[in-house]
Amino acid sequence: MKKAFLAIFLSSALSAGAQNLVQYVKPIIGTARMGHVYPGATSPFGSVQLSPETDTISYEKPGGGYNGDVYKYCAGYQYEDKTIVGFSHTHFSGTGHSDLGDFLVMPSVGKLLLNPGTADKPGSGFRSPFSHANEVSEANYYKVKLDGPNVLAEMTTTTRVGFHQYTFPKSDDSHIILDLMAGIYNYPEKNLWTYVRMVNDSTLVGYRSTSGWARTRNLYFAITFSKKFTSWGYRNFSGKQSYNGFWGQFRNTPNFPEIAGRQLRTYFNFKTTEGEKIKVKMALSPVSMDGALANMKAEAPGWDFDQVKKAGQDAWEKELHKIEVKALNKDEMNNFYTAMYHTMINPTIYMDTDGSYRGLDQNNHKADGFANYTTFSLWDTYRALHPLFNIMEPKRNADMIKSMLAHYDQSPEHMLPIWSNSANENWCMSGYHSVAVIADAIVKGNVEGIDVNHALEACVTTARRRDYAAIGDYIDRGYIAAEKSGTSVSSTLEYAYDDWAIAQLAKKLGKNDIYEEFTKRSLNYKNVFNAKSHFMQPRLADGSFKTGFDPFTTHNMGFIEGNSWNYSLFVPQDPKALIGMMGGNKKFVTYMDSLFSYDLPEKYFAETEDITKDGIIGNYVHGNEPSHHVVYLYNWTDKPWKAQEKIRMILKRMYKPTSDGLGGNDDTGQMSAWYIFSSLGFYPVAPGSTEYAIGTPAVYNATINLPNGKKFVIEAKNQSEKNVFVQKTILNGKVLTKPFLNHEDIVNGGTLTFEMGAKHK
Amino acid sequence: MKKAFLAIFLSSALSAGAQNLVQYVKPIIGTARMGHVYPGATSPFGSVQLSPETDTISYEKPGGGYNGDVYKYCAGYQYEDKTIVGFSHTHFSGTGHSDLGDFLVMPSVGKLLLNPGTADKPGSGFRSPFSHANEVSEANYYKVKLDGPNVLAEMTTTTRVGFHQYTFPKSDDSHIILDLMAGIYNYPEKNLWTYVRMVNDSTLVGYRSTSGWARTRNLYFAITFSKKFTSWGYRNFSGKQSYNGFWGQFRNTPNFPEIAGRQLRTYFNFKTTEGEKIKVKMALSPVSMDGALANMKAEAPGWDFDQVKKAGQDAWEKELHKIEVKALNKDEMNNFYTAMYHTMINPTIYMDTDGSYRGLDQNNHKADGFANYTTFSLWDTYRALHPLFNIMEPKRNADMIKSMLAHYDQSPEHMLPIWSNSANENWCMSGYHSVAVIADAIVKGNVEGIDVNHALEACVTTARRRDYAAIGDYIDRGYIAAEKSGTSVSSTLEYAYDDWAIAQLAKKLGKNDIYEEFTKRSLNYKNVFNAKSHFMQPRLADGSFKTGFDPFTTHNMGFIEGNSWNYSLFVPQDPKALIGMMGGNKKFVTYMDSLFSYDLPEKYFAETEDITKDGIIGNYVHGNEPSHHVVYLYNWTDKPWKAQEKIRMILKRMYKPTSDGLGGNDDTGQMSAWYIFSSLGFYPVAPGSTEYAIGTPAVYNATINLPNGKKFVIEAKNQSEKNVFVQKTILNGKVLTKPFLNHEDIVNGGTLTFEMGAKHK
Repeated sequence: MKKAFLAIFLSSALSAGAQNLVQYVKPIIGTARMGHVYPGATSPFGSVQLSPETDTISYEKPGGGYNGDVYKYCAGYQYEDKTIVGFSHTHFSGTGHSDLGDFLVMPSVGKLLLNPGTADKPGSGFRSPFSHANEVSEANYYKVKLDGPNVLAEMTTTTRVGFHQYTFPKSDDSHIILDLMAGIYNYPEKNLWTYVRMVNDSTLVGYRSTSGWARTRNLYFAITFSKKFTSWGYRNFSGKQSYNGFWGQFRNTPNFPEIAGRQLRTYFNFKTTEGEKIKVKMALSPVSMDGALANMKAEAPGWDFDQVKKAGQDAWEKELHKIEVKALNKDEMNNFYTAMYHTMINPTIYMDTDGSYRGLDQNNHKADGFANYTTFSLWDTYRALHPLFNIMEPKRNADMIKSMLAHYDQSPEHMLPIWSNSANENWCMSGYHSVAVIADAIVKGNVEGIDVNHALEACVTTARRRDYAAIGDYIDRGYIAAEKSGTSVSSTLEYAYDDWAIAQLAKKLGKNDIYEEFTKRSLNYKNVFNAKSHFMQPRLADGSFKTGFDPFTTHNMGFIEGNSWNYSLFVPQDPKALIGMMGGNKKFVTYMDSLFSYDLPEKYFAETEDITKDGIIGNYVHGNEPSHHVVYLYNWTDKPWKAQEKIRMILKRMYKPTSDGLGGNDDTGQMSAWYIFSSLGFYPVAPGSTEYAIGTPAVYNATINLPNGKKFVIEAKNQSEKNVFVQKTILNGKVLTKPFLNHEDIVNGGTLTFEMGAKHK
Repeated sequence: MKKAFLAIFLSSALSAGAQNLVQYVKPIIGTARMGHVYPGATSPFGSVQLSPETDTISYEKPGGGYNGDVYKYCAGYQYEDKTIVGFSHTHFSGTGHSDLGDFLVMPSVGKLLLNPGTADKPGSGFRSPFSHANEVSEANYYKVKLDGPNVLAEMTTTTRVGFHQYTFPKSDDSHIILDLMAGIYNYPEKNLWTYVRMVNDSTLVGYRSTSGWARTRNLYFAITFSKKFTSWGYRNFSGKQSYNGFWGQFRNTPNFPEIAGRQLRTYFNFKTTEGEKIKVKMALSPVSMDGALANMKAEAPGWDFDQVKKAGQDAWEKELHKIEVKALNKDEMNNFYTAMYHTMINPTIYMDTDGSYRGLDQNNHKADGFANYTTFSLWDTYRALHPLFNIMEPKRNADMIKSMLAHYDQSPEHMLPIWSNSANENWCMSGYHSVAVIADAIVKGNVEGIDVNHALEACVTTARRRDYAAIGDYIDRGYIAAEKSGTSVSSTLEYAYDDWAIAQLAKKLGKNDIYEEFTKRSLNYKNVFNAKSHFMQPRLADGSFKTGFDPFTTHNMGFIEGNSWNYSLFVPQDPKALIGMMGGNKKFVTYMDSLFSYDLPEKYFAETEDITKDGIIGNYVHGNEPSHHVVYLYNWTDKPWKAQEKIRMILKRMYKPTSDGLGGNDDTGQMSAWYIFSSLGFYPVAPGSTEYAIGTPAVYNATINLPNGKKFVIEAKNQSEKNVFVQKTILNGKVLTKPFLNHEDIVNGGTLTFEMGAKHK
């Protein structure tokens, strides 16, 4: 069986095998509208994300009020824009809230302008027009011609270093601007302080303290240029500064030895010959300027741009080869490997090469025996991204869990992360889904040096934190009263699921009392279910359901990023019980069908956050996460085939190999992880369980090269665009009688064969 | 001789001997008007200076414009004030520029008010009236009754810990406020960021980043209370903050686990019984919150206030006993030992107990084999304070020099300190007088592990820094052209002296080329001397003297803190040549006499900085430093007795044992060091030389207990208020023929006997 598969595999031009897979990564996918991904260069899980900003939007409008476009520029880049402001070193991938955008670099030629200028008059500042025809976006490589200064900009990275290469025209007046006041989510008070110091004639170090989405954040840098400056200088755009040096010694001179201020732009002047390349390396550190210098020395000591680019692309190649697929066509190869790429950007490494990192307690720590990560968007990623890591990247996932435990140990609230951002907790979204990530890994046997009892303690302590987000009310009442929270229903449902995950972890570790406590809590979903309406509904403290209920409404009706129609299906831990509660198999199938077919009135779109209209199918919202497991619930009914046709539809409609191809925020890889699982033919409906629901493969075949050296091969016989229905599923030669797969079946290696057909069975 | 002396010494009630000397320290001396010293508690050279603020003055007036009173509150306290705002942990001693005032603590009872209120309506805020009758100010102990809340406040310190003890009345509504936005030199933009985290139910840690006089400064703290709070909270007085937590989780609640913001005041609530003492310890660290906790543990682990107070006073007792004097009366004992006290406050220890400190490069460093110091007001202190340390505290002085060399190594400008303040360079005042401190120590043989060649290199590099303060012009032209600097004359004179000091150091180290280079530079004082007017005068680039010269004017006429009449005497390195240049002995004596007798018109007082009118005798300005050596120049004439009468007059008129007893800023101990030397009967006219000019003792006798175990005894026979003239000076039995003493004469131990009389010889 396997042999036959390999023959097919090797013969196909569209299969992965030994070929170059980086070619299929198209970081430009999703850079338009709501995808919120960026086209720039980054290494797998790298600390540096070096990417163009097409606008730098201040949170405050010049005339007062707040600027909604801040949301649009979460990743700094919007495909339809015509100008580039510069290239900054940090970006979230696909988030629904913004921050970062640190240390913007921009070349310019001619008269030095230290304002960015406007998009409609790019010549009024250092901003430059560009065209997509002159733009190349690859994994760890970005190139664009800047039409304004006539400079070719190229960039690549190592984990902690951004490497720029600018090809200048001949000029006595060439500049590279380092804008230290630019940023994403650039609230006027975001920049607290900036410090810059010359180390030698072509190297500087510095740091910036910001209070953005991360409330107390410090980022240190070292920047070095391949060529000495003819001169350099800065401008302080902050109106007020206490003391700027007695008699201004050294302060107002050009060629400063050091500067500091709230709003600084610096510039470095050069004479360039035609086609001269000036290279710039910027290393980042979460702890110190010395750390940044050491990171530079460790990762990018030389000046060979092509070698650094190649090393980074080789690293991507290695990561991508963890799943080798043969897709239906080039578009789907692009989709698949771009999705793979998007699942390996966040979380990000957050420590120096020597292990030093800033902890949640704002002290510096040293990671002992693990790599420390940040950028945990857990409300999104517990669903499929971390389960995907448990197959492909168990060691990284274990390190991420160790990072979460360090977060727990160091956090002033003594809680596991909710949304971890650069040594800060954003408290973004509901639930305490770290526990699902932890339970999922340990239940699946992915322990890898995790102190499992400490992990359980962290889960339990977090879940018992009464003063956080109505947990106390939830514990006392069995549900969150509508008076206590605007998300009383969705939070109750999510807590119940998380509690079930804790129970599974406790069971695995033989802690019966905890198992029982949290199993009981995991049934709380029942307490917000209205048996009369068959919907999950906001319920008042007196036990009555709140009046004025509308199953299509989200805001202020007890839900977040999903209305009751979707959220009523959020009992991933026990679909069977859910189905029973909702009236049994037949009624449930009808309910599910109507979800996908309902013609949602226009007025509800406005309140559906974070997604484009394309992100909705009927009333099913794929662009947000709460329904990511939903289509697989058909597996618990008598009609799993209904899942199969819809999965293929979702894959087609929600993921396209175009700049506007993502129907909603990629959410640090969760949308992409859904794509990968669903393309392969199975999905982790309830992380914390070892079970996967089998869907329908969208590829011809796939080989998962497991880290234990084994291979899990997926083969889809008679695969085609139309043959979306699974006729038979055979695991290692044995026909499966139920549409479920176990984690062991995968990690022990083997072959899963699907026989496909155009009609459902 | 010695034996006889000891007999006298032991018999006197006013002599020092084995008695308690701390009793003579009156920190209240100089706390009125221009003294700018503080009455609070500190340990010798301690990092913590815990002292009351009688006002917290913002640099900006509420209605706009700048508030000159900021200068008045350099030390936070003005004796004539009637209210106290709170007790903060850091204060300069006697400076002419302000900063610090970190972490203000204030008890209150009754309704919690989080604004300080105004001096005329103290009840409108947490400010309290107080009276001097209820105030005790001792070395390392301060006590005051706060009439508002009816709380007795007491404080003491260790090097790095401020220890408060508050005796409360009975109340269910007692509070201790920790004001994190208060500060001295409180420019509205000074506070960059504040972070506070609960460690347990009675301990918090945090830090504050400020940009005040120190441009980039971070100070970390740990604070612990002897009693658990019933509750706690904060208010953020900053209008804008980027992001304060999703749904405000944990953020707007009382009993915060952590907070952060730009302008914060925190409070801690208690129930108190009548007379209940609540103690508070705050440890500081220049590098980290962990460092602050470790400092607390190392220095003040317990809660015994009296024991900490005693340990600190014992440390002072030990320091004070380094010079045991018998003064003419109790007032002069108070003057002398308060002056001693004031010479041992600044510079301050700037490192954790484990040696960690923030360097000038804003990196953290570890002091290896020395104690790191900051607060170097070198334009003042090179004159007499560091020379005093070379006798009394050679090891500390060597550590200070090592700190200066670390500063040099780490400074972005690669220069020795000018005015070092908490890992920042203020560039305050003229010259590069670190070189004088270094040369003085090494020439006097006080090497103590200093890398002397590195020290010389640092001096030379600093003095050759062409782009600093017109040094380039000075080197090229032999003087600073008036067009290039507002202090062209005084800077030329100071550079010339500093260059002479470098030459002496080079000579000592056998570096002839450097000796010659800097000996030549040291003659540059001649280039600003106008042989026609016999004054030092501003000179233009074309070589002509600037017109409109007025020897009494300071501002914008080439001088700083001293007019030409005073500054024309600034050739301490070669008084003999100066006298020749000025027309010889007779003319010079007339010039000197007129300096002290001239009736300076009123209009010139306004432009005489940093001193009260009392700080001037005739046209001689003692309240500022440039003339501190001047009176001793009579020793180079045929009338040294004129020095003697004037020294006793200056001691009497410029130093009084009262709150307004200092005629000008104490300038981190320089004024006090002048007092000590001059009271003992000699003075270091040109640090960098081993020679002291002999004046006239003002004490009956004194024993300097040298650190090498030897004693240098000074004895004044026939001493009295009127017997100010020295009839004969006998060193170890040998009559001196010239009014000079050598450093070796002192440090080898011995006895210097003065025979005093009412008529000059």
